[in-house]
Amino acid sequence: MYELLKTEGRAKRGRFSTVHGTVETPVFMNVGTVAAIKGALSSLDLKEIGCQIELSNTYHLHVRPGDQIIHELGGLHRFMNWDRPILTDSGGFQVYSLSSLRGKIKEEGVTFASHVDGRKIFMGPEESMQIQSHLGSTIAMAFDECPPALAERSYIEASVSRTSRWLDRCIAELKRLNGLEDTINPHQMLFGINQGGILPDVRIEHAKVIREKNLDGFAIGGLAVGESHAQMYETLDQVVPYLPVDKPTYLMGVGTPENILEAVDRGVDFFDCVLPARNARHGHVYTNLGKLNLWNEKYLKDDRPIAEDCDCPTCRNFSRAYIRHLLKAKEMLGMRLCVIHNLYYYNHLMQEIRDALDQGTFAAYKKMRLDGFLNGKKA
Amino acid sequence: MYELLKTEGRAKRGRFSTVHGTVETPVFMNVGTVAAIKGALSSLDLKEIGCQIELSNTYHLHVRPGDQIIHELGGLHRFMNWDRPILTDSGGFQVYSLSSLRGKIKEEGVTFASHVDGRKIFMGPEESMQIQSHLGSTIAMAFDECPPALAERSYIEASVSRTSRWLDRCIAELKRLNGLEDTINPHQMLFGINQGGILPDVRIEHAKVIREKNLDGFAIGGLAVGESHAQMYETLDQVVPYLPVDKPTYLMGVGTPENILEAVDRGVDFFDCVLPARNARHGHVYTNLGKLNLWNEKYLKDDRPIAEDCDCPTCRNFSRAYIRHLLKAKEMLGMRLCVIHNLYYYNHLMQEIRDALDQGTFAAYKKMRLDGFLNGKKA
Repeated sequence: MYELLKTEGRAKRGRFSTVHGTVETPVFMNVGTVAAIKGALSSLDLKEIGCQIELSNTYHLHVRPGDQIIHELGGLHRFMNWDRPILTDSGGFQVYSLSSLRGKIKEEGVTFASHVDGRKIFMGPEESMQIQSHLGSTIAMAFDECPPALAERSYIEASVSRTSRWLDRCIAELKRLNGLEDTINPHQMLFGINQGGILPDVRIEHAKVIREKNLDGFAIGGLAVGESHAQMYETLDQVVPYLPVDKPTYLMGVGTPENILEAVDRGVDFFDCVLPARNARHGHVYTNLGKLNLWNEKYLKDDRPIAEDCDCPTCRNFSRAYIRHLLKAKEMLGMRLCVIHNLYYYNHLMQEIRDALDQGTFAAYKKMRLDGFLNGKKA
Repeated sequence: MYELLKTEGRAKRGRFSTVHGTVETPVFMNVGTVAAIKGALSSLDLKEIGCQIELSNTYHLHVRPGDQIIHELGGLHRFMNWDRPILTDSGGFQVYSLSSLRGKIKEEGVTFASHVDGRKIFMGPEESMQIQSHLGSTIAMAFDECPPALAERSYIEASVSRTSRWLDRCIAELKRLNGLEDTINPHQMLFGINQGGILPDVRIEHAKVIREKNLDGFAIGGLAVGESHAQMYETLDQVVPYLPVDKPTYLMGVGTPENILEAVDRGVDFFDCVLPARNARHGHVYTNLGKLNLWNEKYLKDDRPIAEDCDCPTCRNFSRAYIRHLLKAKEMLGMRLCVIHNLYYYNHLMQEIRDALDQGTFAAYKKMRLDGFLNGKKA
């Protein structure tokens, strides 16, 4: 249940209620691909850094340890000891990006090889829903195809049309699964996914089709996969007005702090991205004046925290010099401290965005942050 | 300042006061070689798992980031954000074990190659004290040579005699360093190290020499490096009676829970060992019925914590099945959760040992634990 609390331009401040608790939006979902955050973070750490909703990957959990195992163990929440909302992706994106079997997409679904043991796996809309039902996530994502943003029109049109047919099969299958006696979460929600590359007419036509379905939210997929930032923003300008304002809008796989500020401004509520954790593992950490590379020699004796205005567990306790030392000594703790900081930074950025929206000052807040990133780059 | 609170046979229950706080003994020191606990644990985690005193390695910190850097940053406590006692080793053990330059030991000290960049480094008693003074640890260890327990008598005798001369140089140098204006810790303590392989007469003679020095504690070095457990216990039986009962006795680099119970029974107060963290990183975790190997297939659906009677953050929150999944998926979190458990297990074992000594029931406690380990192996 999404409640629209306030708007500023197209930007939305909302509240999303689920059986696993409430999510204040706009929100960034922290990514725990295999039911763990890369960088040695547990569900306990997620609470420390202000995470409201966690995202796990259906494909990865299907191949290991297996969704049937997690089902027997009482579902993903219990498995990873996380009692707040979880969104699972559909598995589609990983199937395409990991399997390199784009040619094997058929109307029924996709056949691909497991990256763990090479065994052949078939996944279609029904299988994706069954796996996500086994996991018992709060929000399931519809099984879609994610064509390259810059693919040919004919390919994208055929793909989007199949994604629409797959959505109907997802809806029917999840309804059936939610009614089963041994289901983990009988209230599992479903988000549909808008596709269409950067072809506005295809995007809009598809948005019109899926918004008529009784869905709990709408994602915009297939961006941040090759097109420019300008093209991404343009696509949002074009398609978001055709998605329901009284349902959450989720921009999948995005992005940088700049991307998030721009997308919120265009009406996006939900985000997820592996970038902050991946950057952290390479010692690249966020501040309001842009990123620092802690491998840099200049931090050898730098006693300051990563960001003086940051209240994260890392910045409250450890210096740049210490973290740099850990990274150089290849101590796992170095990565962990950077990941904690970067995820906290993202969650805190969203908190500031929500506060600004509450106060009707989002435009000014956005300008201040973008100016800061720009000035940091110049410095 | 060591206060002997109670004894049971030769076992000692004590309290060791330092400028960084009090250590209840017998105690296990958690090892943070390069100012971090392997397995992504920070000083915050050390507090969570009941660590009273941390051990860092002089040699490692000398070569990276450099003790001069840590000195400039205010010392090791500040560097790693740990306000309780720290013991630093002398660097000697690493010099011999990492440099493979045993032949280059001279009266002045040892020349060896850095394992980081290969540069030649000279370390003698004065250098070791200077580095440890830069680090500002609570307790510095005297620079000794640690000959193989099973080396020839003539080698061990010559080595022990040099270690005695080096001790005098350490005492003089630390006295000078503690008086310097820019010293980090003017109250830095010094422990001497007893050597002598498994030759009782050499051990005892050396103990008689060093116990006359005005030292804050006495370590037994050179055990757990090749001899049998029976030989180690025999050596403790022989030498501990010649060390002052009103000072702490530290058995270096030991050991298994069984070793610790046997050594406490023979009058040892301080322990350190990399074993519990190393075992943890390989998924080998401790219980009162012996070790489990979490890689084992039988834990695939095991919803129980590692140990049902354990109150550590890992056991309070996560199952064997989840941790096994993380280890198989090569998620750093798997190692971290195992290290947290194993170090908590060791710290808690020491707590139970102290409680038993307080109540005069150590003999019964020791028997119960040893029987448990034995039964676990049979099961």
